[in-house]
Amino acid sequence: MNKTDINVIEEVNLNKPIFIEALPGIGHVGKLAIDHLIDNLNATKFAELHSPYFPPQVFIDENGLIENMNNEFYYLKEFGEDKRDYIFLVGNSQALSPEGQFILSGEILDFVEGYGIEMIYTLGGLATGQPIENSKIFGVATNIETIEILKEAGVEIRSADGGIVGASGLLLGLSKLRGITGLCLMAETPGYFIDAEAAEAILLKLSKLLNITVDTEKLDERAEETKMMISKAQQIEQEMLGKNKQSADDLRYIG
Amino acid sequence: MNKTDINVIEEVNLNKPIFIEALPGIGHVGKLAIDHLIDNLNATKFAELHSPYFPPQVFIDENGLIENMNNEFYYLKEFGEDKRDYIFLVGNSQALSPEGQFILSGEILDFVEGYGIEMIYTLGGLATGQPIENSKIFGVATNIETIEILKEAGVEIRSADGGIVGASGLLLGLSKLRGITGLCLMAETPGYFIDAEAAEAILLKLSKLLNITVDTEKLDERAEETKMMISKAQQIEQEMLGKNKQSADDLRYIG
Amino acid sequence: MNKTDINVIEEVNLNKPIFIEALPGIGHVGKLAIDHLIDNLNATKFAELHSPYFPPQVFIDENGLIENMNNEFYYLKEFGEDKRDYIFLVGNSQALSPEGQFILSGEILDFVEGYGIEMIYTLGGLATGQPIENSKIFGVATNIETIEILKEAGVEIRSADGGIVGASGLLLGLSKLRGITGLCLMAETPGYFIDAEAAEAILLKLSKLLNITVDTEKLDERAEETKMMISKAQQIEQEMLGKNKQSADDLRYIG
Amino acid sequence: MNKTDINVIEEVNLNKPIFIEALPGIGHVGKLAIDHLIDNLNATKFAELHSPYFPPQVFIDENGLIENMNNEFYYLKEFGEDKRDYIFLVGNSQALSPEGQFILSGEILDFVEGYGIEMIYTLGGLATGQPIENSKIFGVATNIETIEILKEAGVEIRSADGGIVGASGLLLGLSKLRGITGLCLMAETPGYFIDAEAAEAILLKLSKLLNITVDTEKLDERAEETKMMISKAQQIEQEMLGKNKQSADDLRYIG
Repeated sequence: MNKTDINVIEEVNLNKPIFIEALPGIGHVGKLAIDHLIDNLNATKFAELHSPYFPPQVFIDENGLIENMNNEFYYLKEFGEDKRDYIFLVGNSQALSPEGQFILSGEILDFVEGYGIEMIYTLGGLATGQPIENSKIFGVATNIETIEILKEAGVEIRSADGGIVGASGLLLGLSKLRGITGLCLMAETPGYFIDAEAAEAILLKLSKLLNITVDTEKLDERAEETKMMISKAQQIEQEMLGKNKQSADDLRYIG
Repeated sequence: MNKTDINVIEEVNLNKPIFIEALPGIGHVGKLAIDHLIDNLNATKFAELHSPYFPPQVFIDENGLIENMNNEFYYLKEFGEDKRDYIFLVGNSQALSPEGQFILSGEILDFVEGYGIEMIYTLGGLATGQPIENSKIFGVATNIETIEILKEAGVEIRSADGGIVGASGLLLGLSKLRGITGLCLMAETPGYFIDAEAAEAILLKLSKLLNITVDTEKLDERAEETKMMISKAQQIEQEMLGKNKQSADDLRYIG
Repeated sequence: MNKTDINVIEEVNLNKPIFIEALPGIGHVGKLAIDHLIDNLNATKFAELHSPYFPPQVFIDENGLIENMNNEFYYLKEFGEDKRDYIFLVGNSQALSPEGQFILSGEILDFVEGYGIEMIYTLGGLATGQPIENSKIFGVATNIETIEILKEAGVEIRSADGGIVGASGLLLGLSKLRGITGLCLMAETPGYFIDAEAAEAILLKLSKLLNITVDTEKLDERAEETKMMISKAQQIEQEMLGKNKQSADDLRYIG
Repeated sequence: MNKTDINVIEEVNLNKPIFIEALPGIGHVGKLAIDHLIDNLNATKFAELHSPYFPPQVFIDENGLIENMNNEFYYLKEFGEDKRDYIFLVGNSQALSPEGQFILSGEILDFVEGYGIEMIYTLGGLATGQPIENSKIFGVATNIETIEILKEAGVEIRSADGGIVGASGLLLGLSKLRGITGLCLMAETPGYFIDAEAAEAILLKLSKLLNITVDTEKLDERAEETKMMISKAQQIEQEMLGKNKQSADDLRYIG
């Protein structure tokens, strides 16, 4: 496998969809929020992306079946008060290498531009490194009009303080270069656990901005599942690190 | 050398062969098991793979002859009770870079698909990090039917705990994307030495699954040889690390 | 985005322009000096470069607008006593990977060669690691005639001591291979803060060499702004490092 | 610059030349030996290689002139008792990345194969990590006949102990794949200084194998010069490391 491959499962016509990215990131805020939304609203998966830029591994699911690193595209038609169409990007992985990050973000935008996306939302967490009462939602955008919309929705504007690393940042930056309007919502989170509260906060703000209604009840359960998966995963991490170290030696020295 | 090169030594026709991967990995369980099986059953080498994704080095054999990093393909015809054909993948190296891992796994599958492989087995070790009585064999697969077959053979199903890194994982994942059925067998092993017991355990389980008979007597000797090679290698490792450090400086500063 | 893209904003004819590079580097001496000069003389931006070799991120400006990693080209026509044309290269980033450094430097030279550049200046800082009274200016060049010119201008010639890493070095080296004359000016600086004094020293030497006049009054203010931006940035750096670490785990283990 | 470029300075016809590689490596044994031989015998430079796989930097010579990272090809016609032709490969750098090492070694072999090379010698050091009386010369080869020749010349055969990393190993390995006979000579050296004694030992063994005469008198002087250059370089290394660290921060955070 030497190039990214996007496998279209269902041909679908969408009317100026809004594109929402929620790939794994800090506190899994975005991923948790949109995985829940997809579940809750029965969004339909219509494409799957595989790439040599993902980590060179597979996951194992609860039945012992292997699962490839992937990104998945879901759609919703005529959803919410405004009857808008949506494309959601979720998955279990981001590109590993800096160049891979650029290439993959470009390929993702090429794909969704084919559906005539009108706007892009990227979601993420903002690590505070310490416990927080209520997760505040911060935002940035590609133009000043969108900044105003964020302010009206009660989103705090983040300014002149560093940047956004990875897909949430690059998809927005490359969209700006293509003349696509976009914004990024970031929820405050301690950052060291799966944060259902932050995910709920971002979903509520998203509901307000998109004029949609989302039931956030089951978010806690989902967070619980994810926590369990992580704790299991961390046991394995030890093994893997061991394995990698060992392999490294092997690769260098075993005839 | 800027691309992977597969040199076919013997043209051979195989009937729906089973493809078994056993590249270097944790405890060398898979490599040890299949190197032994190839030896024991006089399997025939029919192709050799060289790649710029391997570590940039050569090995030195017992006669002072240099040996390239490589992967090798062996075949067996009408072997075992079921008179099945087999392709074995062994070698002294895996790709170094994440992208190299994907590209190489894809090229390997392209090659063996040309022989009409019906199924893929990947073999590995599962590091316990501590001494073990009897090496349990764990398994995962690409579909639920194969999981059932593993259960019937007394293989423990590994579930929802992390993943499989490297060729054993990627070859399985990419096979799944190509619609090829596959499984991975992992033997428990402390992980910090060449584990003949684990290799024997995996060979016995393999015999049961494939309905073949394999003599495991000489496994200990082979493990001994490998141990000697490693201890020698580790002396050299010191030199090499020294050399690399030194070179790094040289490369940066000597006119 | 899988290749470097240079977006030409204004078609301009230049007469044997002098090309001056001042990308981010030690103490920001070059960047600070030329950003100031561009501001002070109202140089015109005529092209913008984006590349997958830059860090995979965006910056956030004081209004909450995202800003892509970029390099920018400015020009000045008939400037200074000698009425020379100039091209200035500034930006917020250099290529991350060693190969990216070579590729990008080559693409930049291809672009400015199209404008018939006659000579290249690269600017940088020379870290002393300790406080200094007056920042001495050191220089190197692509040929001995230019070394003489530097000496006449009171520039100390740096000799047989290591090298120049990054764009300031590579643009000069690749220019030499293309038969373009060039030099590099390096200002002594402690290296651990934005050094307005060093930037002033390099501007004064530049004025002498180019026979131009530059007002260096506002340099301190600019240095102040930059310092503020950095301190803010460093708070964020903590978050980002946290985010990256977290993501790394996620990427490896979350299904 | 996105591909390796070999600039041929003089068209020359050579008769089955012997190709000798001596790029920078441990203790600079090979480089020191062949730089001296080239000087001593007035070998002629006929080609120069530049590559994006080298470190992204330039060196500064004693006159303040910048010097690109490069590899250089020299030739000698009808040299020694046997009146043989020779191609020598020297330079200031090796490829940085593993893939770069493979690609560059392949391109170098493509180039010298065009001159009909009959055999390849690679030279290196063998780090003992401690002072040594007399530097013993070890050897390895691509075939058993050559091992015999090495034994007759009193070269110790190195066996089953690890490998050879970098150009000295890869050029030999890729030559073997192309059916070109080759050997590697390694001189014992403490490894932490420029070792004139080891260089002399390797030159004497080389003289015996090639049936040539080389004056080794000036080797000490050359070693002295090189030592001076290194000590200077090491002062600069500190600055550069500082610069790189600083730049890394800048690249990430300065708008």
